[in-house]
Amino acid sequence: MTIDPAKHSSAPVVGILMGSDSDFEIMREASLVFDEFGISSEISVISAHRTPHDLEEYATSAIERGLKVIIAGAGGAAHLPGVTAAMTVLPVIGVPIFSKKLNGQDSLYSIVQMPAGIPVATVGIDNARNAALLAIQILALSDEPLMAALIEFRNKLADASRQKTAKIREKLHAKD
Amino acid sequence: MTIDPAKHSSAPVVGILMGSDSDFEIMREASLVFDEFGISSEISVISAHRTPHDLEEYATSAIERGLKVIIAGAGGAAHLPGVTAAMTVLPVIGVPIFSKKLNGQDSLYSIVQMPAGIPVATVGIDNARNAALLAIQILALSDEPLMAALIEFRNKLADASRQKTAKIREKLHAKD
Amino acid sequence: MTIDPAKHSSAPVVGILMGSDSDFEIMREASLVFDEFGISSEISVISAHRTPHDLEEYATSAIERGLKVIIAGAGGAAHLPGVTAAMTVLPVIGVPIFSKKLNGQDSLYSIVQMPAGIPVATVGIDNARNAALLAIQILALSDEPLMAALIEFRNKLADASRQKTAKIREKLHAKD
Amino acid sequence: MTIDPAKHSSAPVVGILMGSDSDFEIMREASLVFDEFGISSEISVISAHRTPHDLEEYATSAIERGLKVIIAGAGGAAHLPGVTAAMTVLPVIGVPIFSKKLNGQDSLYSIVQMPAGIPVATVGIDNARNAALLAIQILALSDEPLMAALIEFRNKLADASRQKTAKIREKLHAKD
Amino acid sequence: MTIDPAKHSSAPVVGILMGSDSDFEIMREASLVFDEFGISSEISVISAHRTPHDLEEYATSAIERGLKVIIAGAGGAAHLPGVTAAMTVLPVIGVPIFSKKLNGQDSLYSIVQMPAGIPVATVGIDNARNAALLAIQILALSDEPLMAALIEFRNKLADASRQKTAKIREKLHAKD
Amino acid sequence: MTIDPAKHSSAPVVGILMGSDSDFEIMREASLVFDEFGISSEISVISAHRTPHDLEEYATSAIERGLKVIIAGAGGAAHLPGVTAAMTVLPVIGVPIFSKKLNGQDSLYSIVQMPAGIPVATVGIDNARNAALLAIQILALSDEPLMAALIEFRNKLADASRQKTAKIREKLHAKD
Amino acid sequence: MTIDPAKHSSAPVVGILMGSDSDFEIMREASLVFDEFGISSEISVISAHRTPHDLEEYATSAIERGLKVIIAGAGGAAHLPGVTAAMTVLPVIGVPIFSKKLNGQDSLYSIVQMPAGIPVATVGIDNARNAALLAIQILALSDEPLMAALIEFRNKLADASRQKTAKIREKLHAKD
Amino acid sequence: MTIDPAKHSSAPVVGILMGSDSDFEIMREASLVFDEFGISSEISVISAHRTPHDLEEYATSAIERGLKVIIAGAGGAAHLPGVTAAMTVLPVIGVPIFSKKLNGQDSLYSIVQMPAGIPVATVGIDNARNAALLAIQILALSDEPLMAALIEFRNKLADASRQKTAKIREKLHAKD
Repeated sequence: MTIDPAKHSSAPVVGILMGSDSDFEIMREASLVFDEFGISSEISVISAHRTPHDLEEYATSAIERGLKVIIAGAGGAAHLPGVTAAMTVLPVIGVPIFSKKLNGQDSLYSIVQMPAGIPVATVGIDNARNAALLAIQILALSDEPLMAALIEFRNKLADASRQKTAKIREKLHAKD
Repeated sequence: MTIDPAKHSSAPVVGILMGSDSDFEIMREASLVFDEFGISSEISVISAHRTPHDLEEYATSAIERGLKVIIAGAGGAAHLPGVTAAMTVLPVIGVPIFSKKLNGQDSLYSIVQMPAGIPVATVGIDNARNAALLAIQILALSDEPLMAALIEFRNKLADASRQKTAKIREKLHAKD
Repeated sequence: MTIDPAKHSSAPVVGILMGSDSDFEIMREASLVFDEFGISSEISVISAHRTPHDLEEYATSAIERGLKVIIAGAGGAAHLPGVTAAMTVLPVIGVPIFSKKLNGQDSLYSIVQMPAGIPVATVGIDNARNAALLAIQILALSDEPLMAALIEFRNKLADASRQKTAKIREKLHAKD
Repeated sequence: MTIDPAKHSSAPVVGILMGSDSDFEIMREASLVFDEFGISSEISVISAHRTPHDLEEYATSAIERGLKVIIAGAGGAAHLPGVTAAMTVLPVIGVPIFSKKLNGQDSLYSIVQMPAGIPVATVGIDNARNAALLAIQILALSDEPLMAALIEFRNKLADASRQKTAKIREKLHAKD
Repeated sequence: MTIDPAKHSSAPVVGILMGSDSDFEIMREASLVFDEFGISSEISVISAHRTPHDLEEYATSAIERGLKVIIAGAGGAAHLPGVTAAMTVLPVIGVPIFSKKLNGQDSLYSIVQMPAGIPVATVGIDNARNAALLAIQILALSDEPLMAALIEFRNKLADASRQKTAKIREKLHAKD
Repeated sequence: MTIDPAKHSSAPVVGILMGSDSDFEIMREASLVFDEFGISSEISVISAHRTPHDLEEYATSAIERGLKVIIAGAGGAAHLPGVTAAMTVLPVIGVPIFSKKLNGQDSLYSIVQMPAGIPVATVGIDNARNAALLAIQILALSDEPLMAALIEFRNKLADASRQKTAKIREKLHAKD
Repeated sequence: MTIDPAKHSSAPVVGILMGSDSDFEIMREASLVFDEFGISSEISVISAHRTPHDLEEYATSAIERGLKVIIAGAGGAAHLPGVTAAMTVLPVIGVPIFSKKLNGQDSLYSIVQMPAGIPVATVGIDNARNAALLAIQILALSDEPLMAALIEFRNKLADASRQKTAKIREKLHAKD
Repeated sequence: MTIDPAKHSSAPVVGILMGSDSDFEIMREASLVFDEFGISSEISVISAHRTPHDLEEYATSAIERGLKVIIAGAGGAAHLPGVTAAMTVLPVIGVPIFSKKLNGQDSLYSIVQMPAGIPVATVGIDNARNAALLAIQILALSDEPLMAALIEFRNKLADASRQKTAKIREKLHAKD
């Protein structure tokens, strides 16, 4: 990609939150996507339940600190994305974190079913990668090179997919 | 019951919260139970999403205002009980409000599945009546007449149940 | 609100899609929100299954036609949002439409659980209103008056919520 | 079986699609069944989301390329079978691929709940083997030797099942 | 459509089964589709549980009576499609019938989750219309005019969908 | 049926329990089946939660009072069948009562998922009729005329089912 | 226990069926319970789908072969218990076999939700042990020593449970 | 914490029950929390199904033995918390124990969905830690030092959470 790596060291435009450091392995995927696209992001552990006042401070100051989008991942009674969304008008993207206990249904439902007035843009269970891509699609609306990078990304995605047919046909015959 | 009605006009010891006035028909059941037991309660609409700062004020001042228990009812991505619990060490009782959309599963899961550290005492879907009785069981631990009233209440409940057998047997034969 | 009504007659910046006209009662809520905020939107029935080629044309030409965000509502095996997202890099917001058959679970799961690479920003079941507000939050990132209007909207939401406490307390006593 | 192995090298009459090569271990079961019955099939990775235009080309040319049935396996928001079915009048058989995240409910619901007009013949979760057998039952309607082979297959299935009783009775006593 | 109506009076090529006459309102939709396409079908109530021997007779004689496809609708512990499929090598299409008790999940799961060896081609809950269309797609593989009629049907479906946009836009403005 | 009606007035051999008189409309179906077969039954409201001591008395004295089978219907956290089963070695048949709140899932799961050691014979949601028939199948093991009556009942069931085909075919043509 | 071991070698009074030998590890639990109680049982693999005619023969001859109760375990679209119940008036006990695919929901629903007229006595998922105990409770109705053995079994169960408290208290302190 | 360890050896004020010793690993978490706060608790295995009379004795004598709160953990058809609650007016806290069979849904539903009159304060699946904290919140209402200890505990929780941000940022860069 032809994105200027210098951008990376500038002030973050995306905040990545998680309720607990046990969600880190999932949420770092978002961080890596931003690095790939040369977008500056910051990652933090802030819990809607254990540190509600920190969350309030974070959310209410987000705009003035230059954030454009917030990504929040949480599991179980996953209130982090919704409570963040309640305290900022920035778009908030929610990532439901899987737990074997209710298969991620609890995480998904408690993120997506927000009341009228306060939306959370919910992506698939554990799909932090898509949360980052959605954020980038939003940022690209006013950033043409980023839009071009996204289109290039999609083309690469398609190419990678196309090369799989040959691969599986080989495997198929190898096993015959 | 022999509870002193004078108590009723004193400062509330239980706060009843709901996220939206559409939950009122359910949540008033809690209010009526407190009236029945002569316990002073106050009912309020405070939304974790539409008025997060009011909620913070409510929850953080609850102890000094004399509340002993908080009951919070909410539906969908039901964050009200959990966010309240995050900002007070008073026991918080959560009432999941039914919605046909996911049959109350969303409300139930987003209330009961709290992370370790911040419990919400969850009762059945739409069961505000039980939320009030649970609050009373808690209050009765340091209030002997209330404990006696609870025992009397249970006896009446049993008696009422016992009279049902005769009633249904009549119906059965009436329909023969 | 102080939004310039002239904007309304300009070329649409948001496309609202639905798979079937039976989804209209839900999806028009989105349209009304855009009118309220003075944002030009266009509403269309395009089915991922009955008119796949029309959808392709719509999605692949969306950017050049000036759209910034696409909202797509669908029920059952709800492919419309995902297939649209596959053919544009604009942010696509999905609205799962309720059906009593599986309580909206089918609509929700088939919209939100997109594979890595192609996100859909999913809102709550039947919550077209939130889809519109999310779109506005995205548009407001590069439109200061819109951002101000959003903040004003949130304040009104909070005020409306605050007035509910008095109302339900009256109802409560009226019924005593 | 007495099926002519020469058939195998002829032009494929069944197309096996999968959205991602991670579905290969499941979908190759279908391929093996076709080999067993001497039916020529081709297997490909085509994603409804990553390569939508390839899918359109595949589906719209399927009839003229001599395909009679298409089998499509996909997981999560599994749009591949439905979108394929939207672009051909050949019978399309959908295989929901299991994922631990929602136990395969997302895959199943997003394949089976198609809108009126565009059916997908859905088989059990991960049951690519049955997808192939269903395709063979369809092909056998106009291919008498294949019908005979199917009947023979069923008889062998029954015989294999019958031999299990002796086996488990032995195991039972062995463990006594 | 240009299908020869004379076909209609010939021996049925599709059998439509339902477990109970309470399923009739749903299953007649299949019958109407066959009438529309000039395909002769027969409709019967046969229960896998109340008349298992009748079902055996029906299924084992289906091929010699000239049937090509069997459609079976059932609700609850819906065994009819699977048990029919176990006794014939004709393609069997299953229609899960909705019941409010488990939202159709019981019907769907007990039809679609067949063991390896005996597939049932499952369509959406209550979607008898799609069951009929799937049967027609199967029959059309060896009936060119029917294939042409199907393509015409799809075109009409698309046209009908296309006319909906104008309609809803009118409604939208009428309500403004 | 040729069952001696005199039997009816003798001491009950089946006890029908329900947790609440709101379950009566469902549970009376069981009572009517016993009347039909000339089996003496008694119906009672006893709650595992409101009158636990009555339940203990009922269950522990059931054998000496001549009961052979107990049918217990309950909804929500449906403990009645399991708690009854814990206090008698008579077969206990559980009827999960439907509630819209969780579609009967709560009732079903809390009845059927008993721990090893204490079984409850669970029938379908709201299917008190089947509970009675199961009880009769159990009683018939040592009552030949009852066994004969059951076989006659099954034959009538089959005949009734058979007559439905003619009926629906008429309806179908009437609507043509 | 004081049950005469000679009984064991007599003709079986309980038939244990499973749809596939992969269910053996679960279903042998039932067999072991019958051995423990000195009740003669026979275990067989018969599939409702792969060997439907064998099942018919088994079920319709069960009474004359001296069986009193049939236990049938099956997973997925679990038709074995219901189809067996349709062809005999003996009590049929169904054991839903767990599969990770839908967590046993498919097995449970397709066994328990039988239509009115043909009950299946359903026990918990994988709970073959309880199926056997339920069968014994049924047999004990006309077999006093067996009833005594059951009561003895329950007492032992209680004693074993009682000894657990001491055990866990030790573990607790050991870990302090 | 500055809680007096002497308290620990006094008569227990909280009873911790579990239905089976297989629940011990989960339930001991509650015990450890009480130790941490210097609260005397007792842990016991009592089954609602295997030892119902022991449970009755335990529950009905709880108040006079000095217990203030009872915590009961159970899985599957989890009746222990509800049946205990039926026999005491002490607050009963229910812990649904996870099982892979229905993902804990059975345990959760059969604990939380209690009928009006008899509440159980339900916490999250396997969340015995929260059950203990809820009990402590209840006890703290009339124990100021305990209330202070709780507030201290919350502060530590917040501090621990705050230190996680630095930790994950390190990990993130370490992996770069």
